[in-house]
Amino acid sequence: MKNTLNREIPETIAGYGKVKPYAGAFATAPDMGRQAPPVKRIIPGESKLLASLEEVFLKIPVTDGMTLSFHHHFRNGDGVVNQVLAVAAKLGIKNLKVALSSIFPVHKPLIDHIKNGVVTALDTNYMSGPVAEAVSAGILEQPVVLRTHGGRARAIECGQLKIDVAFIAAPAADEYGNVNGVQGPAACGSLGYSLPDAEYADCVVAVTDYLVEYPLSPVSIPQTRVDYVVTVDQVGDPKGIVSGTTRITKDPVGLKIAATAARVIQAAGMIKDGFSFQTGAGGASLAAAHFVRKMMEEANVTGSFALGGITGYMVEMLEQGLFKKLIDVQGFDLEAIRSIAANPNHLEVSAGFYASPYNKGCAVNKLDVVILGATEIDTDFNVNVVTASDGVIMGGSGGHSDAAAGARITIVVANLIRGRLPIIMDRVLTATTPGETIDVLVTERGVAVNPRRPELKAQLLAAGLPVKEIVELKQLAEKISGVPAPVVTGEKVVAVIEYRDGTIIDVVRQTRR
Amino acid sequence: MKNTLNREIPETIAGYGKVKPYAGAFATAPDMGRQAPPVKRIIPGESKLLASLEEVFLKIPVTDGMTLSFHHHFRNGDGVVNQVLAVAAKLGIKNLKVALSSIFPVHKPLIDHIKNGVVTALDTNYMSGPVAEAVSAGILEQPVVLRTHGGRARAIECGQLKIDVAFIAAPAADEYGNVNGVQGPAACGSLGYSLPDAEYADCVVAVTDYLVEYPLSPVSIPQTRVDYVVTVDQVGDPKGIVSGTTRITKDPVGLKIAATAARVIQAAGMIKDGFSFQTGAGGASLAAAHFVRKMMEEANVTGSFALGGITGYMVEMLEQGLFKKLIDVQGFDLEAIRSIAANPNHLEVSAGFYASPYNKGCAVNKLDVVILGATEIDTDFNVNVVTASDGVIMGGSGGHSDAAAGARITIVVANLIRGRLPIIMDRVLTATTPGETIDVLVTERGVAVNPRRPELKAQLLAAGLPVKEIVELKQLAEKISGVPAPVVTGEKVVAVIEYRDGTIIDVVRQTRR
Repeated sequence: MKNTLNREIPETIAGYGKVKPYAGAFATAPDMGRQAPPVKRIIPGESKLLASLEEVFLKIPVTDGMTLSFHHHFRNGDGVVNQVLAVAAKLGIKNLKVALSSIFPVHKPLIDHIKNGVVTALDTNYMSGPVAEAVSAGILEQPVVLRTHGGRARAIECGQLKIDVAFIAAPAADEYGNVNGVQGPAACGSLGYSLPDAEYADCVVAVTDYLVEYPLSPVSIPQTRVDYVVTVDQVGDPKGIVSGTTRITKDPVGLKIAATAARVIQAAGMIKDGFSFQTGAGGASLAAAHFVRKMMEEANVTGSFALGGITGYMVEMLEQGLFKKLIDVQGFDLEAIRSIAANPNHLEVSAGFYASPYNKGCAVNKLDVVILGATEIDTDFNVNVVTASDGVIMGGSGGHSDAAAGARITIVVANLIRGRLPIIMDRVLTATTPGETIDVLVTERGVAVNPRRPELKAQLLAAGLPVKEIVELKQLAEKISGVPAPVVTGEKVVAVIEYRDGTIIDVVRQTRR
Repeated sequence: MKNTLNREIPETIAGYGKVKPYAGAFATAPDMGRQAPPVKRIIPGESKLLASLEEVFLKIPVTDGMTLSFHHHFRNGDGVVNQVLAVAAKLGIKNLKVALSSIFPVHKPLIDHIKNGVVTALDTNYMSGPVAEAVSAGILEQPVVLRTHGGRARAIECGQLKIDVAFIAAPAADEYGNVNGVQGPAACGSLGYSLPDAEYADCVVAVTDYLVEYPLSPVSIPQTRVDYVVTVDQVGDPKGIVSGTTRITKDPVGLKIAATAARVIQAAGMIKDGFSFQTGAGGASLAAAHFVRKMMEEANVTGSFALGGITGYMVEMLEQGLFKKLIDVQGFDLEAIRSIAANPNHLEVSAGFYASPYNKGCAVNKLDVVILGATEIDTDFNVNVVTASDGVIMGGSGGHSDAAAGARITIVVANLIRGRLPIIMDRVLTATTPGETIDVLVTERGVAVNPRRPELKAQLLAAGLPVKEIVELKQLAEKISGVPAPVVTGEKVVAVIEYRDGTIIDVVRQTRR
């Protein structure tokens, strides 16, 4: 069958089940109850402290076929996933589903666990590195479920992603299970992505290397939801949090794109008091923030809030008074961690608060502007951030589709040509974020406005911005680098791309090597 | 039938249903799922702001037979319950259940709503004043359900108290439904008792007189759970929060009891680093805190935390460094409100975190010592805090049974004779808190130790405390004031006393007038 983006999707996918096709960014309303984890109790005097991860496994007990969940706030510095899965392997447990909010190169040992049958399913919002490559090559029998950050929260809250045991990498914990991310040697800041897991898992384990006197405060995850507490030598290496660039680009093309994006925001009349903003941690996105900052300073504007994964750059803007609040689901660098620990205007929120489409209002709904990246964008403005030009998985939506759906203006910034290939095509290989939620594409050779937004196009034209049709930009790129040969994939579905509402927006098929 | 306290309980009670009899403080384990409120959504751009309470009623819509819930942080200064029920009456709605965590004299208009059929059921943890008297006289067809503070959280979390609409008296809110209790003209401090309602009600309404710019912070109740926001002239009068005495008694008998209670704590070896403590806001309890404070100062001890309803006296001890943290479910005075707004070591917690027996560990479980009051205590140490000597309802457990069950040492302080009647009897009129959870009774004429705690008795004797058998104390009192005639009640059950685990510990029958 085909969904409303005209993507060919099997009606049923082995290892995933029946497919609910994507029908539009807001076309599918919730029709389910909420996940209801079992009610438990603990008698006064009972201890939750266990001596080792192995003891945790035996106590719960963790058994074949369970779903274990993990959060990715340590990004490429994560120490908990590998330790926990090593115990699973040692105990001979098989057939686990690993629900890890993002998968990084550090998680390479997953490949062996998959080969050995310890892990047979993955559920994640983003994957890069060896695991992503192995998945693309077909290492798993059943497809990976790739969700958005908000969609993962929704899936947990609504019971589609049922978690048997949530392992919380806890920078600080007390022996009764109160947890936060802002204290201890491996402070990671916000624990936003772990909060749905802690709230809805059948069993919750706090794994910490920094056990403090009861009662810990502040409390991000409360004792009322934590079954066991266990200490390990190290939960993670905060240095690994800063993976990828979190500095402003110095590339002149990137700077030009960023400056243009800022002009788009200004032309749309957004640089005014109460402005709210999200941008990624990539070099071009941060550069756009830099130009926006200059405009805010010149216009003497006080913004409302900045949202998302938070960088030191946003912290500076908060401290300078350019934004009143930061809403933080994940810290991208050590400055963000320092700030959330100390500044009451820097708020920790859950992934559901940040971006779930199925609650009474997530924060992306309140965004004026978001700046996002793209690996590919098509002439319908559909964006691919999952697969590279060779069809191999190298990312995932993360908050991409969520912020795009929520913001009043969604801007995609991208070099017109990347790796000698045009970024604009008739049809992206993998649709991640639907075109109806993308308003503007900014490239170094011009700006394209989604035809759904004629009033915005008029504003940009009036401001003298180099507005072109997206087809024109595509032709421009093709003139320079030629029309790329289409990627030929195999038949096997290696990943299912769930839109934030749980419908299937696309699938990823095995690469041919 | 009879429960394990030998209280005669009907097997089924009209208007309540089948009774699960009390079987021991920890005898009944949970065997249910968790309440799962419906999953909803809100599209970007949708507003939650409604113009009036009447519009809220029509929008939801509130219909006959629904359960409306309210919290009592404004105590006798509450302004929301009466406003909401006036709208219900105006719209001709009938047969509502009002689940209000405590009922005060200010809620007198409830009587008319009951007479008119607008309200036909009450569910509360404490009631005093005209409504309590009317209930005792039999104004309601069906019995009031009297719970503990922790038991109410449990009943909500586990679905026994299903809330259709939670009305949150919100000292501060933004238009997207974020709420806190620490800002605005009617700041009340902790919103602890309202948090289960907000988390599990089908529909949540924030009623505020202080609407702030989005995003409000700190956030006690998140936007993700709030359906509508409505402004009213006044949500409450903070002056009414300080109802009853929150000052140290000057009565010499009260001071003597308090000093003895402190000596009991010392003799039990509790005055040491890490000490945790709860005491009520009554004059004698506060006086006990005063003597404990002196001991802590003399021994140069740093306690861990103080818990419960928080008074300015506890705030002083926090600020002085005698406790490291305050865990606050409710502020009892303006000093507590000032402190929780400003001091990161003063923590707001939910009623479930405070005291629910059915989660993975509530705070009362971590208490070393709690000091509680009693209207009556019997020779099995069962305590009555519900009915007065004439059988009329004048209180309720509140956190009494919860703290008693959790604390390592539970001390009841009471004048041996009150209102010319002995406080100790063979059998309390209404069993509220089971004797197995009470360790020591302290009176001005001596101290009685529960026979379940021989080691504690030995400690108190060794410290030279005036330890007597509880029967001796009873005889002493009766020598002075005679044996009181038993209260004769009618047959009709006007209130069902639920123990914190949801079993029935006793019933209250109609008074004969």
